Amino acid sequence: MTEVLSNIIEMIKPLDEGAMAQARARQDMLTKPQGALGRLEELSIQLAGIQGKPIPQINHKAIITMAGDHGVVAEKVGNWPQEVTTQMVYNFLGGGAGINVIARQAGIRIIVVDMGVASEIETNPQLLSRKVAPGTQNMCLGPAMTDEQAMRAVETGIEIVRDEVAKGLDIVGTGDMGIGNTSASSAICAVITGRPVAEVTGRGTGITDEQLAHKVEVITKVLTVNHPDPAQPLDVLAKVGGFEIGGLVGVMLAAAAHRIPVVVDGFISGAAALIATALAPGLKDFIISAHVSAEAGHKSLLNYLGLTPLLDLGMRLGEGTGAALAIFLAETSARILAEMATFAEAEVSEKEE
Amino acid sequence: MTEVLSNIIEMIKPLDEGAMAQARARQDMLTKPQGALGRLEELSIQLAGIQGKPIPQINHKAIITMAGDHGVVAEKVGNWPQEVTTQMVYNFLGGGAGINVIARQAGIRIIVVDMGVASEIETNPQLLSRKVAPGTQNMCLGPAMTDEQAMRAVETGIEIVRDEVAKGLDIVGTGDMGIGNTSASSAICAVITGRPVAEVTGRGTGITDEQLAHKVEVITKVLTVNHPDPAQPLDVLAKVGGFEIGGLVGVMLAAAAHRIPVVVDGFISGAAALIATALAPGLKDFIISAHVSAEAGHKSLLNYLGLTPLLDLGMRLGEGTGAALAIFLAETSARILAEMATFAEAEVSEKEE
Repeated sequence: MTEVLSNIIEMIKPLDEGAMAQARARQDMLTKPQGALGRLEELSIQLAGIQGKPIPQINHKAIITMAGDHGVVAEKVGNWPQEVTTQMVYNFLGGGAGINVIARQAGIRIIVVDMGVASEIETNPQLLSRKVAPGTQNMCLGPAMTDEQAMRAVETGIEIVRDEVAKGLDIVGTGDMGIGNTSASSAICAVITGRPVAEVTGRGTGITDEQLAHKVEVITKVLTVNHPDPAQPLDVLAKVGGFEIGGLVGVMLAAAAHRIPVVVDGFISGAAALIATALAPGLKDFIISAHVSAEAGHKSLLNYLGLTPLLDLGMRLGEGTGAALAIFLAETSARILAEMATFAEAEVSEKEE
Repeated sequence: MTEVLSNIIEMIKPLDEGAMAQARARQDMLTKPQGALGRLEELSIQLAGIQGKPIPQINHKAIITMAGDHGVVAEKVGNWPQEVTTQMVYNFLGGGAGINVIARQAGIRIIVVDMGVASEIETNPQLLSRKVAPGTQNMCLGPAMTDEQAMRAVETGIEIVRDEVAKGLDIVGTGDMGIGNTSASSAICAVITGRPVAEVTGRGTGITDEQLAHKVEVITKVLTVNHPDPAQPLDVLAKVGGFEIGGLVGVMLAAAAHRIPVVVDGFISGAAALIATALAPGLKDFIISAHVSAEAGHKSLLNYLGLTPLLDLGMRLGEGTGAALAIFLAETSARILAEMATFAEAEVSEKEE
């Protein structure tokens, strides 16, 4: 482990219990029955604990959408051509993808990162070019990447968050793009949760039963060939991960280190969370689970992490689309705490005991 | 049934299948795997069918929050004093309630209506004073209201929507305020769904086991005393309903008649939906179920109506708070359909067969 990584892990401290107690006390003074806003109340209290402020502030909102390609596509695990990763990066930059629309609606900035797309992408002021390599190796034949590349990917995520914090960042969501990345995520999920490959492998962007059986076979072979060690999260990342997944590991660790709530999107972001929380268990308190994806395996993953997602809308697009919706809920929860009148302020009678 | 009511029911027509087919076809051309945005896709198609536009528009958004008092509070079914209804109306007008904050966050106008609050409320340009009577009668002793009052309440909701449509209205959410109104809603729910009183009676704003047992007893007595006829929805409203519930019945019917999507909040709005859909079964296609409330009975109610709620956040505040969050999702779904790039526009390759 490098010094950058061990330092960032060291920086992750517990939630601020004092701020949480004050937030909870204020929630109970607001003009509603106690607890009547359910998870929005809990969310506001978590935000208070993360930010260390009795009334958390959500002004600067960003989604970091990381893209990378996967050598395992040579095994025909899906049915979209690899060039779609690159094409979708251009779509993000052009503002036409799902994440662009939802982020506009919720007032969220998108940071698009080339973590390791297979082809060259033209320079664009909107794009962070941080290509670790032009796609991972085929993990069916050996490790997806070297240990150095895995570390580079994680450190890249850390650096990006550090730069964004300098500009102002109150909440960050994670997003991904990468043809083949459900295979990497299923492999990570199987290794770290210990669940059977078949349970944590799904249809990704839409495959038949036969193709699904083949995908399970491929992932099983990937694990046999590589023997990733669940006790060594970076070994798992290097052997069966992806560059965008490694980048998101860094994003999550750095967000927690800088006391910024991190809204984790779906299955691929969840795989990154498995690695990140294995490296730094304290990170878990800083995570807001956006939604449960329709991708098989995501439920097992969330159960393993002990996270309860905010939304269940049958989504399975990635890109950070679920995270963007959840950031809206988080911002709403903070505003409720800040702006609702107390019983005293509004001269409303309280419950009779 | 009056002419106003029968006319409005007559105006409710089926969804526009042509617009829905076009919306569905467009969803399948957008740069994502087909169906990957789950319920947001379905929602956009429903909006298309309601508005009769292949690309629905959500610009003018409103929540109609109706307040009324309930004579049944004399039976001590809850533990908040009746004056809270009035105090909360002032809180709505002052902008300090939960619904105010969430509506501000989602860019939604709130229309506050006094449908039958027990005390006089000072004139306020923000308030629609449509008091049918100063609170209902104690339904433990006889009907909550006269048949004329029930009809007046429903017609008031119809008139309010008609006026809002004239100003511009693309989507409307329902909200309620009324100490005692979970008792009326449970009674309505028991009569129309045929489920046992104990199953559809919950803790409202927070009561003990003992108080809950008493509430079930009271509602059981209410049904014995009044014998509401499930085949006559207006009879149910008059005998065991409330003025705000009647108003919301009118809001729902008129919204559907004017082809405006109606986002139904929680348990009290759901009780109004039971009556409204019993009057006009075709209304159901115009309803978006915002969330499942933590209030016991809401799940049974939604099952009976065959509605799947968008959100499950453990909320039980009413006021339209769940509806406001769901309106954000509806608006997002419409923007996705309008603003996402197609495969051709973004030059993204499609799935290989």
